[in-house]
Amino acid sequence: MSMDYIKPLLRQSDSKIVLMVMDGLGGLPIESGGPTELEAARKPNMDRLAEEGTLGQLIPIRPGITPGSGPAHLALFGYDPLRYDIGRGTLEAVGVGMKVNKGDVAARGNFCTLDQDGVIVDRRAGRIPSDEAVKVVEKLKPVTVPGVETEVRHVKEYRFAVVMRGEGLEPDIDDTDPQLAGYKPLAAKARTSQGNRAAELFNQWIALASPMIANEPKANGLTLRGFATHPGLASYAEMYGLRAACIAVYPMYRGVSQLVGMEIVDFAGETPEDEFNALARAWNDFDFFFIHIKKTDSKGEDGDFGGKSAFIETVDAALPKLLELNPDVLMITGDHSTPARLRTHSWHPIPFLLWAPETARPDDQVSFGERSCARGGFGTCSSMDTMPLALAHALRLNKYGA
Amino acid sequence: MSMDYIKPLLRQSDSKIVLMVMDGLGGLPIESGGPTELEAARKPNMDRLAEEGTLGQLIPIRPGITPGSGPAHLALFGYDPLRYDIGRGTLEAVGVGMKVNKGDVAARGNFCTLDQDGVIVDRRAGRIPSDEAVKVVEKLKPVTVPGVETEVRHVKEYRFAVVMRGEGLEPDIDDTDPQLAGYKPLAAKARTSQGNRAAELFNQWIALASPMIANEPKANGLTLRGFATHPGLASYAEMYGLRAACIAVYPMYRGVSQLVGMEIVDFAGETPEDEFNALARAWNDFDFFFIHIKKTDSKGEDGDFGGKSAFIETVDAALPKLLELNPDVLMITGDHSTPARLRTHSWHPIPFLLWAPETARPDDQVSFGERSCARGGFGTCSSMDTMPLALAHALRLNKYGA
Repeated sequence: MSMDYIKPLLRQSDSKIVLMVMDGLGGLPIESGGPTELEAARKPNMDRLAEEGTLGQLIPIRPGITPGSGPAHLALFGYDPLRYDIGRGTLEAVGVGMKVNKGDVAARGNFCTLDQDGVIVDRRAGRIPSDEAVKVVEKLKPVTVPGVETEVRHVKEYRFAVVMRGEGLEPDIDDTDPQLAGYKPLAAKARTSQGNRAAELFNQWIALASPMIANEPKANGLTLRGFATHPGLASYAEMYGLRAACIAVYPMYRGVSQLVGMEIVDFAGETPEDEFNALARAWNDFDFFFIHIKKTDSKGEDGDFGGKSAFIETVDAALPKLLELNPDVLMITGDHSTPARLRTHSWHPIPFLLWAPETARPDDQVSFGERSCARGGFGTCSSMDTMPLALAHALRLNKYGA
Repeated sequence: MSMDYIKPLLRQSDSKIVLMVMDGLGGLPIESGGPTELEAARKPNMDRLAEEGTLGQLIPIRPGITPGSGPAHLALFGYDPLRYDIGRGTLEAVGVGMKVNKGDVAARGNFCTLDQDGVIVDRRAGRIPSDEAVKVVEKLKPVTVPGVETEVRHVKEYRFAVVMRGEGLEPDIDDTDPQLAGYKPLAAKARTSQGNRAAELFNQWIALASPMIANEPKANGLTLRGFATHPGLASYAEMYGLRAACIAVYPMYRGVSQLVGMEIVDFAGETPEDEFNALARAWNDFDFFFIHIKKTDSKGEDGDFGGKSAFIETVDAALPKLLELNPDVLMITGDHSTPARLRTHSWHPIPFLLWAPETARPDDQVSFGERSCARGGFGTCSSMDTMPLALAHALRLNKYGA
């Protein structure tokens, strides 16, 4: 599925579009016949927007497919996640706030435990805690390879990320992780001749980095995997003619936004109110605002039905701050469902609300919830439909054909 | 449309999935404003499942397209019927219980009436009744061609099927039916050089078979058409990691199931209760069960609105036998619609019910019918969505991407 038909239709406008993503928004009743998390929440503002706007439900990837956060956001941004693969190295790197541009090569690193012969005895270095691993990562930071720039950051527990930047780098490189204990880490080996230079440079980096950690009790070795570069996504400016901003607390979502050319708005704090305040400050500088709200997903993964409902109420209570900016189009949805009942991401459709005071066609629905969205005016759509719908309701698209 | 994205996501599970297809389930009101056959039926079990589960309606092929039974079932099984053509010869052969493997060539045969010069005077041999034709087919069975195995079975009235099995056979062969009376049957002629060997062997078979029936009063000649082989479908085990069983009374549906690698469960009787008993006996040996129930379609084709409703009630009354097996996912749907009002297959969407006590998201609907399904939580889907939805609700799929 391609969105090439959008670009020729774009037209200038001063309209403002807000896409508010409550991560993992969709849910399930915790008991048979009961309400979902969203249906149980008291949320007068969202319900008013639902009454005035149009509801629908989104399929994030394809029916039945549960997405990770990367593909789920790509789809909402209008990039077919079955066509564009962000790549593990890139996703890890942008997830901790590192930039990965075209031509850079990113890899995920694992600390491992080696015996005296250099053979891996534990592929995850005893799953050392993050506070220990951070110190080991510090020892890797000074390592430099002539001719390129390398950047290393800790991710979580035994995991870190490396980005290499320079000329002539291609990520066609096999993992150095042998996948089994009892083997030595492999050399970085190019799969095609294009990957030769980067493989050689990564091997130099490994040779310089390994002695730095050789005396660590557990994390005395490392492997690299998932070599990848920027996935080659066209930017929001190219695709949609939009100056786009990202307001997000978590690095992962800032990272994916950066891959599609959004600018990251910095702000202090991490509540919905803090995010809406950041939105207000950035309001005049952008056309499109992606606001990411994480805790709906976290509460779902914790199995905390009541906590997820309560957090939706917190967002609702802060919403007037957003509404007083008078967006032309406000979309409220999730990237996927995370029902507290399942304690994990799921495939269930995502509730979708589009409010546009000048252009939205109201349906019969008067509250924002899974059941009402299933009967909403948009019907069942793909997450990839949200950007064209947003542009249309913001009067940013000319008609197709005469 | 391809389902290649499913296979990498499969994960092990002990969960059990049942797909119950009531053939031709979808209907129409017999009088303006009235209920459909399904809506008119008293079916407390299905209505309870509808209340607890999720409804939707399925488009079998594309909107407006009325399917035959072959493509309709392929779609339900997750194979794009516009991409995979079973081929008339293969469909007829598997429809009467013959096996058609890759490399076999199947053809449909018609008896015809020849004059003393060998010219066709009736292409359908006076539409001789089945009991007469069966005896003529018996005369063909001893015919053998050196180097290959041939199998012949009667289909219905003047129609029979032949399957040839051996090395180097390809079905690129034109029909021997000249399509008009007044001509002699044609020789089997290869369309490409690949078809040469099979064409030559079929001509040998025709030359040996023709004298066997030359003295028949009506069926004294034959033509062959629709040369075809196995359509090359990946099996259920390959596609979905499922050990799949077919429980069906009619050979046609057993045949299509066999083409996708289902095992056929043998059983005595032909009532829904007999089928559910067979299900219970096979329960421990498979992950997936396709149960085909024919009479909804037959009653629809007879124009028997009341009979179709009554038969749905019979199925509903037997359903507790199925439910006491505690399937993780139960889907109830049809392969297409056969409204009694139209007395034939139709293009109308098919009511679809998915019940999964642990994972289904309930919608607002409380009964199983065309109107409620049109407003169900799945919205309007393709028949090809049923298998991914089943796997998801059975927790048999990992998430896509990180």
